[in-house]
Amino acid sequence: MIYDNVENLLNRPVTFLDESAPDSQIAISTRIRLARNLADHLFPSLATDDECTAVCDTITAAAKKTTALSKRNAMCFTSSELDDIDRSILLERRLASPEFFTAVPGRRILVCPQEACSLMINEEDQLRLQILRPGLQLRKTWQEINLLDDQLGKELDFAFDDQFGFLTSCPTNVGTGLRASVMLHLPALVLTGQMEATLKGLAKLRIEVRGVYGELSDKSGNLFQISNQVTLGESESRIIDSLETIIRQIIDSELRTRKKLLQSDHNALLDQIGRAYGRLRYCYTLTEKEALDSLSGLRLGVDLGLFKDVNIAMINEMFTGIMNGHLQKRYGKKLTTAECDIFRAVFCREKLRRSE
Amino acid sequence: MIYDNVENLLNRPVTFLDESAPDSQIAISTRIRLARNLADHLFPSLATDDECTAVCDTITAAAKKTTALSKRNAMCFTSSELDDIDRSILLERRLASPEFFTAVPGRRILVCPQEACSLMINEEDQLRLQILRPGLQLRKTWQEINLLDDQLGKELDFAFDDQFGFLTSCPTNVGTGLRASVMLHLPALVLTGQMEATLKGLAKLRIEVRGVYGELSDKSGNLFQISNQVTLGESESRIIDSLETIIRQIIDSELRTRKKLLQSDHNALLDQIGRAYGRLRYCYTLTEKEALDSLSGLRLGVDLGLFKDVNIAMINEMFTGIMNGHLQKRYGKKLTTAECDIFRAVFCREKLRRSE
Repeated sequence: MIYDNVENLLNRPVTFLDESAPDSQIAISTRIRLARNLADHLFPSLATDDECTAVCDTITAAAKKTTALSKRNAMCFTSSELDDIDRSILLERRLASPEFFTAVPGRRILVCPQEACSLMINEEDQLRLQILRPGLQLRKTWQEINLLDDQLGKELDFAFDDQFGFLTSCPTNVGTGLRASVMLHLPALVLTGQMEATLKGLAKLRIEVRGVYGELSDKSGNLFQISNQVTLGESESRIIDSLETIIRQIIDSELRTRKKLLQSDHNALLDQIGRAYGRLRYCYTLTEKEALDSLSGLRLGVDLGLFKDVNIAMINEMFTGIMNGHLQKRYGKKLTTAECDIFRAVFCREKLRRSE
Repeated sequence: MIYDNVENLLNRPVTFLDESAPDSQIAISTRIRLARNLADHLFPSLATDDECTAVCDTITAAAKKTTALSKRNAMCFTSSELDDIDRSILLERRLASPEFFTAVPGRRILVCPQEACSLMINEEDQLRLQILRPGLQLRKTWQEINLLDDQLGKELDFAFDDQFGFLTSCPTNVGTGLRASVMLHLPALVLTGQMEATLKGLAKLRIEVRGVYGELSDKSGNLFQISNQVTLGESESRIIDSLETIIRQIIDSELRTRKKLLQSDHNALLDQIGRAYGRLRYCYTLTEKEALDSLSGLRLGVDLGLFKDVNIAMINEMFTGIMNGHLQKRYGKKLTTAECDIFRAVFCREKLRRSE
């Protein structure tokens, strides 16, 4: 296991942005995480520093014996050793949560080389397992995380109650401890004003919708994380299957709306896409929200075959590259918000200029 | 004299948009008009139809004897024979006023080949002489219109009062009947918020400021027509000289502000310019105001040497080409506002694509 430099992450392809994955025209990525805790240990918020450190060591040792994290090149990041920029990068690559970075000892992230598999130790729960895959692959992702969970379960004694299932720090995770989410790109539903109705319908089905980077962020870039709310009283399989059914309906609805727009409002669609490209190609200052929204327009344009020279892989990479942490790492220093906006514009201009 | 088709105007270079004229980086054009009426005839608003027609014939006959309008290819347009699109074109080329197009007979426009010299017969006054020149050329323009006025005065008996000077329909024109105006492009003063103070200062000096196309239009495209308010109690020379002094001060102020912006806020300036280019190059629907504002940004970019392949002559031509009348004439039919916005975007995209 390598105690690694966050910088190395930037030079690796991010698996979950692979454009050849199933349904990847609309489904950017599939993520499943499981919340687990060790029996006979207090939850991190109640535990002493020593107990947190001990739990961290126990889990790290167990992880080394799993298939996904046993490799010599698996990376390990310890919260206390990371500066602000590194922390942002782990957040932006969806390997950590904002809550993870506090002064409590024993906070550690283990990541497999392609970032598809990761563990977060001593966040809200002692252990959060995560598998991140491109496109819509709920079944496959579930199988992978199930295997990892089984392998860890052989080494670790998980807190489990016969009536409730897995015990977690927050009651909303008790039961399966499973959260499955799919990131969808839904520009046509947003453009036609149908997204509001879609969100209301999803709320009734107890499906949660969040923005691109966690609970507090807005709906920039027409990106939506769709995930299950219920973890108690249903099997993992049922949760996965019913989520998949719902996701497929949303994808169909987005595709139908795109087709309709192309017929009925071709010019308004082209205008959105063209202006997005024009902004990214020629601006000199660009906020994160405007960048995400413009990349959304550009991606739609590529999806519809309007920009032959721009490929989806590059746009997917840009979705992460334009984030503040990545920009600051790339330019080698801490930047103000205004400076980030300028470097973001440079980054976008250069990317698109090179692909002309 | 040719009783001409408005379409022919579109294929001629517009003199007042010549980019090699003095101070043409900021001063787009200089215009002087004189208001005149014939002695022993009622002003158009009070005259009978027959009297209007008679006045029109008398003035037309006199115009044929002038140097500027004697040529065989001078054009003649009669209000009642023009459709809405043709009328818009004459307005957009600043050869007519909105008030000119009513049902009263004997309304006619005479135009010399390059459009530098024109007469408008039976608008508010029986005769409005106009000279339109590129850049800042108040003295030269005054000499030209003075010559035309003299030549017409030999044939026509102008209503003149020893105490008041030339008599006009509206008291604000009595005296010299002269209105001199210079169209200035002032993006830096607008961007830095200095324009408000400039406007207040000009009001105190009894200098009028209008938008790009007449009294009612807004300040689109950062274009401002600066003109004298006073016509009574000052000589033509004094009016011209004091306007020139003021115009030179505004031009200096704009140039200083551009220089300052380039030093202190280089990136914000480049951003405005880049985004303007991006919009014009890639949009699919564009309002008149947005087009004017974007062309303003593009022109500033060319002025500052940022776009080597786009020349000022083309931008100047686009400032007129994007107007509704010109678009409709070009596409050969009457268009709705939404259709104009689409064709305007096509026009701009094509122009910039060709110059890439």
